[in-house]
Amino acid sequence: MADVVFNHATVRERADMLEFLELCAQRDLSAVSIWGNEIEKVGEARALEALSAHGLRVSGYNRIGPFTPEGLGRARAELERAARFGADHVFLFTGGLASGEYDLPVARNRAETVIADLLPVVLDLGLKLAIEPLHPMLVGDRTVIASLNHANDICDRLGEGVGVVIDAHHLWWDEQLEAEIARAGRAGRILGFHVNDWLIPTRHLLTDRGMMGDGIIDLAGIEAMVRRAGFAGPVEVEIFSQDWWRRDPAEVMDIALERCAAIFGKDRAA
Amino acid sequence: MADVVFNHATVRERADMLEFLELCAQRDLSAVSIWGNEIEKVGEARALEALSAHGLRVSGYNRIGPFTPEGLGRARAELERAARFGADHVFLFTGGLASGEYDLPVARNRAETVIADLLPVVLDLGLKLAIEPLHPMLVGDRTVIASLNHANDICDRLGEGVGVVIDAHHLWWDEQLEAEIARAGRAGRILGFHVNDWLIPTRHLLTDRGMMGDGIIDLAGIEAMVRRAGFAGPVEVEIFSQDWWRRDPAEVMDIALERCAAIFGKDRAA
Repeated sequence: MADVVFNHATVRERADMLEFLELCAQRDLSAVSIWGNEIEKVGEARALEALSAHGLRVSGYNRIGPFTPEGLGRARAELERAARFGADHVFLFTGGLASGEYDLPVARNRAETVIADLLPVVLDLGLKLAIEPLHPMLVGDRTVIASLNHANDICDRLGEGVGVVIDAHHLWWDEQLEAEIARAGRAGRILGFHVNDWLIPTRHLLTDRGMMGDGIIDLAGIEAMVRRAGFAGPVEVEIFSQDWWRRDPAEVMDIALERCAAIFGKDRAA
Repeated sequence: MADVVFNHATVRERADMLEFLELCAQRDLSAVSIWGNEIEKVGEARALEALSAHGLRVSGYNRIGPFTPEGLGRARAELERAARFGADHVFLFTGGLASGEYDLPVARNRAETVIADLLPVVLDLGLKLAIEPLHPMLVGDRTVIASLNHANDICDRLGEGVGVVIDAHHLWWDEQLEAEIARAGRAGRILGFHVNDWLIPTRHLLTDRGMMGDGIIDLAGIEAMVRRAGFAGPVEVEIFSQDWWRRDPAEVMDIALERCAAIFGKDRAA
């Protein structure tokens, strides 16, 4: 089952990083996506040791941001830690408008400048930055980048060292999705593909994502777009959900793997 | 204060259509936006009589849809009623995916075909259809049109008789907003401009819109885009909010008028 990756956030409420890595290893997974604050809870040495003992690689590293003075003050240290963990890519979390700020174009330009300023360090460390456009309902307080079109535009302007991650929950609704995925593919900048689902009703803007198959997203259709665009990497399960956080982490992961096998084909998840 | 219009939905929980029209007349407003189901509650004859007695015109008429067999079965009758009320434009409410349907492009094509099929009747009645792109968080269960780009594309393909309404709450986050407003303006298809606000936090996907000034939308900035694009029509207040629905309708309207005066300039709201 080498082609499914779990993001630790999916089970973080009941499994610390060491338990999470163990659960991944028990399921013969080969890579994980991790969080800096979860590393701190168990200690970097123990986290690195567990990764090595389980033979797990790091796919995504969360994260640089928010783009406040405090968040950016930690950026270099986060990047260096991501490099020590051998991360494939490091997520950017722009955060939203500053307090009392209303000018979204200005905030967007500022975020792009921040990304540009990070790139020399990123390239020096052999890393890649990942822009993951978030859902438009998160603009203002959590992000200023809410479409793949915008992320592609930024990548076009900034060049090497920055790519995109396509998250189904955030982007499924966009009528430009297929064209923008193809555009990202042509530029060779698709760094990841996150799966989850959109529930009807969705009761909370942040913590009511669905398990794949429980909602209305055409996940197989979006995966096909990503594959046609040349992305050969893993499917990453990332579910922020009060409901799933309450359940046993092993059970959540087993259900997610079954769903991935059913939706994305046995060749990738059996 | 001729250039502010209230959508009845803003106060519908505590004011029926006759009370609403009276409240508008007391505030020297010259137009209103109304709902077919609210007309039915008070009776068409009384509604028409009150409009006439107060000298109020109808700006927007809600609505055609959802685009189900049942919703479309009522479409011609709704259009004819909108014409009897002298509405400037009639809102389309596409509804979302059919039960068990996952293919959003197919649902979008189907919605566009429905709009095309409505146009001969619309033109015959001297009306205009208004596509109001809703927020992407409403895709799937309430709409399949969630960006001004998509609405403009549909209008480009369908030609005369269909235009767009720009609602701040639905569209403020879009990095293509200014370009798409300009595009709509060049085509002379901006039929309305709805104001409200985006609250932080937003606690519900449908019924937690903010009063203008209570949130983070740059309303003056978006109005400037709409004016630069040539739209000379009114600012329409449309707030779906459990909090504001609980309050006295007269108070809600007075507060909204004060906010419009403060945000959109005294020339238009004094």
